[in-house]
Amino acid sequence: MSKCRSCGEAAVIDLPRHNANFCSEHFLQLCRRQLSKAISDFEMFMTDDRILVAVSGGKDSLALWDMLIDAGFQADGLYIGLGIGDYSTESGAITRRFAQERGLKLLEVDIRNEHGFDIPTAAGVTGRSPCSACGLSKRHIFDDVAQREGYDVLATGHNLDDEAAVLFGNTLRWDVEYLRRQAPVLQAGNGFGKKVKPLVRLTEREMAAWCVVRGIDYVVEECPMAVGNKHLLYKDALNVLDSTSPGTKASFYLGFLDRMRPLLEHSASITAPGSCPRCGAAAATSDEACAFCRLVETTSGHEQIPVRMVLNKKARKLFDAQWGSQHGD
Amino acid sequence: MSKCRSCGEAAVIDLPRHNANFCSEHFLQLCRRQLSKAISDFEMFMTDDRILVAVSGGKDSLALWDMLIDAGFQADGLYIGLGIGDYSTESGAITRRFAQERGLKLLEVDIRNEHGFDIPTAAGVTGRSPCSACGLSKRHIFDDVAQREGYDVLATGHNLDDEAAVLFGNTLRWDVEYLRRQAPVLQAGNGFGKKVKPLVRLTEREMAAWCVVRGIDYVVEECPMAVGNKHLLYKDALNVLDSTSPGTKASFYLGFLDRMRPLLEHSASITAPGSCPRCGAAAATSDEACAFCRLVETTSGHEQIPVRMVLNKKARKLFDAQWGSQHGD
Repeated sequence: MSKCRSCGEAAVIDLPRHNANFCSEHFLQLCRRQLSKAISDFEMFMTDDRILVAVSGGKDSLALWDMLIDAGFQADGLYIGLGIGDYSTESGAITRRFAQERGLKLLEVDIRNEHGFDIPTAAGVTGRSPCSACGLSKRHIFDDVAQREGYDVLATGHNLDDEAAVLFGNTLRWDVEYLRRQAPVLQAGNGFGKKVKPLVRLTEREMAAWCVVRGIDYVVEECPMAVGNKHLLYKDALNVLDSTSPGTKASFYLGFLDRMRPLLEHSASITAPGSCPRCGAAAATSDEACAFCRLVETTSGHEQIPVRMVLNKKARKLFDAQWGSQHGD
Repeated sequence: MSKCRSCGEAAVIDLPRHNANFCSEHFLQLCRRQLSKAISDFEMFMTDDRILVAVSGGKDSLALWDMLIDAGFQADGLYIGLGIGDYSTESGAITRRFAQERGLKLLEVDIRNEHGFDIPTAAGVTGRSPCSACGLSKRHIFDDVAQREGYDVLATGHNLDDEAAVLFGNTLRWDVEYLRRQAPVLQAGNGFGKKVKPLVRLTEREMAAWCVVRGIDYVVEECPMAVGNKHLLYKDALNVLDSTSPGTKASFYLGFLDRMRPLLEHSASITAPGSCPRCGAAAATSDEACAFCRLVETTSGHEQIPVRMVLNKKARKLFDAQWGSQHGD
């Protein structure tokens, strides 16, 4: 049986990139150190900052919230009801229970109640990919609430796998503007609040293990609308490489921040955005509504389109297996 | 049955990244155009330049030589006998036959006759990976012969798959110095001759098809010493991505040249190399022998080590299946 590198007790997890096994206690210690290193290396926030955590009910965001509280930070949660059928219902219930059990403050925005649409309907009406409509809406609402409620910083649960996969996609396309903007910290400015990703040094698998060890219940299923998107394809490709050479994923992402990003920064173009004439949020110009307000305008009040209707064949098959096919057709 | 996009006749090949099928004639035309575009876009050489083609007996280098002659260029071949058992024997025989049948001039260097070692022995004695010892030796000898024999340019058969895989490896490590140097043309200077890669716009599969259509016999087997190297792993990963989104590989490599490389160039550090006190070749300093001369010094005259002896378990298994296990143990 494998033993913990730190104490020699029975190990509960092997971490090939650290070439070691760990018991529960020393695994948690390793996670705490990686979190702490990310927070200080990238100057994310201080102990007296008020942090708003964007929580989805998945392992990453709940683990992040738990880790921040565990480390003594002041962190409230923000959950957005995206209206993705049973997936959203379950996510919301799990998130609320997590907050209640720990006496934490959870803010909520229901996108249908407040803006008159939901993600499946937005995808169906506009023909955008669901992930694109969802990302746009979440970025807007998270930033809006964080600034309105006076938080110093918004923290999201993007982990190393997420960031490496996004970097991988931007690199395959050599999208220099996106590469320039990819960072674990986006400073406040141009009308946007500060955003940080404290989990960039921790993997998806480590976050799942954190939840298991800490007894955190989370939504295990991937979002049914994300099935087959490129982000998941890039994650798979990186995992294949990482299984052959453990640490490939981490050195790809952290090496980018260390060695490539500095070369891109000094040639960065500065955009001077205006503000949306409708909601006041930062926007490319002041001449027309921001992308979120345009989405609201197109989709708000539209007859609701069920999740299953906007899935491709592959996603629908998985959806039926996970959630049953009775949910609207 | 699928039809040629150009003439409607029966197609012999489908090219997903061009979203089309082609008959033999129009496939060859497409290859000729891609070759011609690479030569002119990257200013590789002119009609009156004397070209030396580095030929291995594999599909890429033989196709390249054939394409250059076909396009009216003056191109001689250079074959290096690397001493990799039956693989080298077969490669040499195929290359000589190719040249003889077409009345082309083939230069030859046998590394054991001229330098007293072979690649398996060099790998065994030094503990270097075979691919590293081989690459070092080939670069040195190709450049040396091209300059001594007065060729204007050395052309190698690196195709789009090769270059994309090298770029992929350099990107995963964010090796900025290697990224800076990765180009389809290396200009003459610092004691080195000009080097070009005319096949950078054509894939491995297209080169195999060129050989089939043109009736070129080539060594089908990969080098037995290359099995399991990272280069092949990166090729596989890119092929998986390309099969999902045809054109990913091409846009990754060509997009790098187009958008990222220009950003790296102006911050390039200039090395002012010396020359090797032993062979006179360009080297980092003039104080010690160049890497090739050091390799010769360490390995020359050493008792010959058979290929099979320096293979890892996986490579040995494949080797035995392809070449038989009687070759030395």
